[in-house]
Amino acid sequence: MKRRIYLRKKTLEEAIKITLEAFAWPRFLKKENIPVKNALGRITAEAIYAKRSVPAFNAAAMDGIAVQAEKTFGAHESHPLRLKVGQEAFFVNTGEPLPPDTNAVIMIEEVHQVSEDEVEIMTPAFPWQHVRKIGEDVVEGELIFPPSHKLAPWDLGALLATGHLEIPVKERPKVAIIPTGDELVSPEEATEELLKEGRTVEFNSTMIAATVEEWGGKAQVFPIVPDIPEEIEKVILEALEADFHLVTVLAGSSAGSKDHTANLIEKEGELLFHGIAMMPGKPAILGRIKEKPILGVPGYPVSAVLAFEKLMKPAFSAMLGVRLPERPKVTAKAGRKIPSRLGTREFLRVRLGEVAGEKVFMQLKRGAGAITTLTKADALCEIPEEVEGLDAGTKVTLEILRPEKDLSHTALVLGSHDMALDILEEFLKKEAPEYDLSLAHLGSLGGLLALRDNLSHFGGTHLFDPETGEFNVPYIKRHLPETPLVLVHFAYREQGLIVPKGNPKNITRLEDLAREDVTFINRQPGAGTRVLLDYHLEKLDLNPRQIKGYETEETTHLGVAIAVATGRADVGLGILAAARLLSLDFVPLFPERYDLAVRKDFFLSPFWQKIASILASQAFRERVLALGGYDVSQMGKMLYEQ
Amino acid sequence: MKRRIYLRKKTLEEAIKITLEAFAWPRFLKKENIPVKNALGRITAEAIYAKRSVPAFNAAAMDGIAVQAEKTFGAHESHPLRLKVGQEAFFVNTGEPLPPDTNAVIMIEEVHQVSEDEVEIMTPAFPWQHVRKIGEDVVEGELIFPPSHKLAPWDLGALLATGHLEIPVKERPKVAIIPTGDELVSPEEATEELLKEGRTVEFNSTMIAATVEEWGGKAQVFPIVPDIPEEIEKVILEALEADFHLVTVLAGSSAGSKDHTANLIEKEGELLFHGIAMMPGKPAILGRIKEKPILGVPGYPVSAVLAFEKLMKPAFSAMLGVRLPERPKVTAKAGRKIPSRLGTREFLRVRLGEVAGEKVFMQLKRGAGAITTLTKADALCEIPEEVEGLDAGTKVTLEILRPEKDLSHTALVLGSHDMALDILEEFLKKEAPEYDLSLAHLGSLGGLLALRDNLSHFGGTHLFDPETGEFNVPYIKRHLPETPLVLVHFAYREQGLIVPKGNPKNITRLEDLAREDVTFINRQPGAGTRVLLDYHLEKLDLNPRQIKGYETEETTHLGVAIAVATGRADVGLGILAAARLLSLDFVPLFPERYDLAVRKDFFLSPFWQKIASILASQAFRERVLALGGYDVSQMGKMLYEQ
Repeated sequence: MKRRIYLRKKTLEEAIKITLEAFAWPRFLKKENIPVKNALGRITAEAIYAKRSVPAFNAAAMDGIAVQAEKTFGAHESHPLRLKVGQEAFFVNTGEPLPPDTNAVIMIEEVHQVSEDEVEIMTPAFPWQHVRKIGEDVVEGELIFPPSHKLAPWDLGALLATGHLEIPVKERPKVAIIPTGDELVSPEEATEELLKEGRTVEFNSTMIAATVEEWGGKAQVFPIVPDIPEEIEKVILEALEADFHLVTVLAGSSAGSKDHTANLIEKEGELLFHGIAMMPGKPAILGRIKEKPILGVPGYPVSAVLAFEKLMKPAFSAMLGVRLPERPKVTAKAGRKIPSRLGTREFLRVRLGEVAGEKVFMQLKRGAGAITTLTKADALCEIPEEVEGLDAGTKVTLEILRPEKDLSHTALVLGSHDMALDILEEFLKKEAPEYDLSLAHLGSLGGLLALRDNLSHFGGTHLFDPETGEFNVPYIKRHLPETPLVLVHFAYREQGLIVPKGNPKNITRLEDLAREDVTFINRQPGAGTRVLLDYHLEKLDLNPRQIKGYETEETTHLGVAIAVATGRADVGLGILAAARLLSLDFVPLFPERYDLAVRKDFFLSPFWQKIASILASQAFRERVLALGGYDVSQMGKMLYEQ
Repeated sequence: MKRRIYLRKKTLEEAIKITLEAFAWPRFLKKENIPVKNALGRITAEAIYAKRSVPAFNAAAMDGIAVQAEKTFGAHESHPLRLKVGQEAFFVNTGEPLPPDTNAVIMIEEVHQVSEDEVEIMTPAFPWQHVRKIGEDVVEGELIFPPSHKLAPWDLGALLATGHLEIPVKERPKVAIIPTGDELVSPEEATEELLKEGRTVEFNSTMIAATVEEWGGKAQVFPIVPDIPEEIEKVILEALEADFHLVTVLAGSSAGSKDHTANLIEKEGELLFHGIAMMPGKPAILGRIKEKPILGVPGYPVSAVLAFEKLMKPAFSAMLGVRLPERPKVTAKAGRKIPSRLGTREFLRVRLGEVAGEKVFMQLKRGAGAITTLTKADALCEIPEEVEGLDAGTKVTLEILRPEKDLSHTALVLGSHDMALDILEEFLKKEAPEYDLSLAHLGSLGGLLALRDNLSHFGGTHLFDPETGEFNVPYIKRHLPETPLVLVHFAYREQGLIVPKGNPKNITRLEDLAREDVTFINRQPGAGTRVLLDYHLEKLDLNPRQIKGYETEETTHLGVAIAVATGRADVGLGILAAARLLSLDFVPLFPERYDLAVRKDFFLSPFWQKIASILASQAFRERVLALGGYDVSQMGKMLYEQ
């Protein structure tokens, strides 16, 4: 398999610059005349001038009486002036035309009605007082809107008032979207059989078409083209002949299909860039054939939408002449250390939560599936090329994908992960779908520190303290004595000896580790399991040096199980679930207490109430029991509070 | 004319609360099934579950080779393991199904191709390594979206991938809009004759319909109904019978028409509120007839749109079950003191500019016409009921109406106003419509202080300093020595004696003010005119006490002119333009220098270059000369710089 080297890979900035400079985008769109009443959100194609003056007549600017100002000059507090209604004074409402021979309005509050047909005033009016003169609002010929103005509801009223029934606007950008790939099948034709064979539903075209629509364009999606170079070429060239402003080719996921577009561009036109230092979206390409832009985006759904968005949004802005609305931004702290590639602009999809009034974000699980990413990502975190990872707590500006979401409905769960938490997540989704959990494995101590640093809501911990023989509480008191929290018991997990199936060397007690013929695989220092081991070895008066392999380490339960499964070691210490996964045997030794350390404010929330009710439910407990090696009899009990 | 007392006037908060509680908004909308491809921006009517698992097969999560994990357990750095391609190892791409009898993927980076059909690995794979298992992304039956979820482009992809071709969404809210008023004429039927008679173009319905559309609803605009109670009732009742979710009645501007809706509601249903302590929008009313809401909004266009928006947006959010997007907000300083009514929630329409990197806002001229307000307002400034005015410089949060506008294209002009500045604004609109001026009269000193406080870009000043006999510069040095600015000469204006037409008392020199038979009207202390007067009186050795009326004051040129025109005084000191306005005679005495004090950074901007070119143009100077009493021969000259 050839590894494709991305020649001429550009940074995202360079790619955008190339895209904007390679085409005369501002001249792409022709103008069209449409009724003003249909023009909401459209962009003016030219300057619009008033076709008539507003008001078209001298109008009263207030409710009151219309008078001839000069006739009122004698009025004074000490000698009020009386005027005859219908002759020298005329009642008018705001907006009404002034009667003939009047040129001022006296506010109704300053008018005293003396009798049916006489009124009295105590202050003179000056000419044009409270009068909206012809054209005072808008004069015929005056500029109403410049070109490239996006029409809002208020603007439509102004246009109608100044004599426009139709208006010249820029046409909508037209985009051709061509999905390619043998493995693809349209949503309408996808059947269970086809999917099980390995075909995938084509939906990138729908997402990109909807993005185009959001930006004010019109998309036409072509039927899926198989990975046959001649066919792909044919369709692309047809699209270029039609009147699209942009042709977008969606690659299939196979390495081969990505090449067809590049090859065609090189054959018929000019390849402008091929590959961007951007994750996701690296394989994006841009070409020019007969002055028209052709964009190729990768097949992985998240890559396709992000590449399209980042590269084409500036181009659309240039075409329309307006800045397209940005996603709302928010500042949030990284919930945990995030590694990133130097030299690549990364767009991490993250979950957002709120802890102690501040926003905290957590990356979606690496390798999260495309659909999960599309539906669960709350925000995008952009990490520039020159940054090589973020420390926990670093403040970053995020683009919000779901502005309407209530952040208090996401709980950030950092700590020692356990498979039972996945089951909790499953139950929560079914019983209270308005809430969700964002889970990450940081280890017990990492989880407690995240709690201390206001970066999480709760987390699993199973840290044994040899001095006191107690779990978790001593570490809490030592590391986060100031953090208001509640320690809730979750389950006891059996720790024991993981041995090959059949237990050929008949290893049944911790003492057996000292046998000559037995090789041990250990956990790393600091791991809860290791601490437990050392504690029990001391109790049994066993010298670690007597144990062959004591110095060899693995960092997870699974790593230990693999070492045993692959024959690297005869035995390791771990939990039943890990042994079960690899069909190994297990000799239980001692129970380990796995608790949840919960922020107190979260503990008091309706969200936790929901979690607590799940922990108390028979159905949930039975599911956890079925994992093997769990004792859930005390699940949910409050053990400690500070 | 009866003044309507607004009984039961509510605060805006109360009115919104009443609106939300009086109707079961969340149950208004029925559901409808629509194709997913058309569902962008629609709101899910119920929870949506995955109809199929994704992936539908065990798929490779990485590019690499698929293997049976158990067969790889022997691999180690010191003794690599060779596998036969096509038998024990199969090349796979990300997303492809695993071949039969394989259950793990080793990343291509860890595979060494030894020969055509053999590869070598140095680490074992564990079961399900780098495999996306069936349903690992999404499991059939899993919740995809909860109810009341607004569908974004990414979401449509997720729906198609999980088996949905159609989806149940909430129907669009349907709104009936009924314009009423004898003075109204539809845009299509408006002719010059009709308008000159006093008819006005009906366009509120278009603005409100467009607002409804922006929120995701559908509006139907009825033909204009004349101010005949029976006719209005008939149309309203017809609308109620049809399947609208909301009926909105647009009042004409006459006091009478506002009553018809209220009367009908009281007759047929229940009046929920009548009048809100809100400016604009006070006369808004809400009623309920047969469980349906009827909203009445006032006729003044800005009132109509604001009342509709503030009252109905929460109701639409409740109907749709989502938070409708808020306008972007920004913090800005008040450019000048702003009075406001205690007890009323005011929505000021303001212009925005940027000075020294901070945003500053200025109210649109009071009494600005509806169209000007609709097209020129950049933002809304909300002043709560308990606030009685804002001091200059106060920071306030504004709602932005035009998020795409470039703020560096607005100049805030505060100082002593002159009619020539209106002409400058007119020329700027014609020659450089991308720029605009926001003008306000603060007096010369007020303008200099605004400059000092970074609240304006430039302003007019004509302050005479008796000690030095100089204009403007002494005040600048005294009050704002630290502010980088340039003083640009604008024009000399004739100050002189304003006397009645015909100059009956033959007042021709300042000395005549001391005559027994002459009564003078003065300006207030601090006014440039007053300072000039006192200076010249001293030079002539004239005692103010000798001048009858010296202690009587007016605050503007026009006030002085009116006092003379109405016979209250025989003479005042002022500028020619004021005399001309009231057809009075004028005796020129001495020129006054009117300059523009300009922020230095603004002086160096392209915007000022444009202004400078207008000041230099013949056409502009001729227009200013035509006002009378101006000497523009030195216009544009730089007089001073600091």
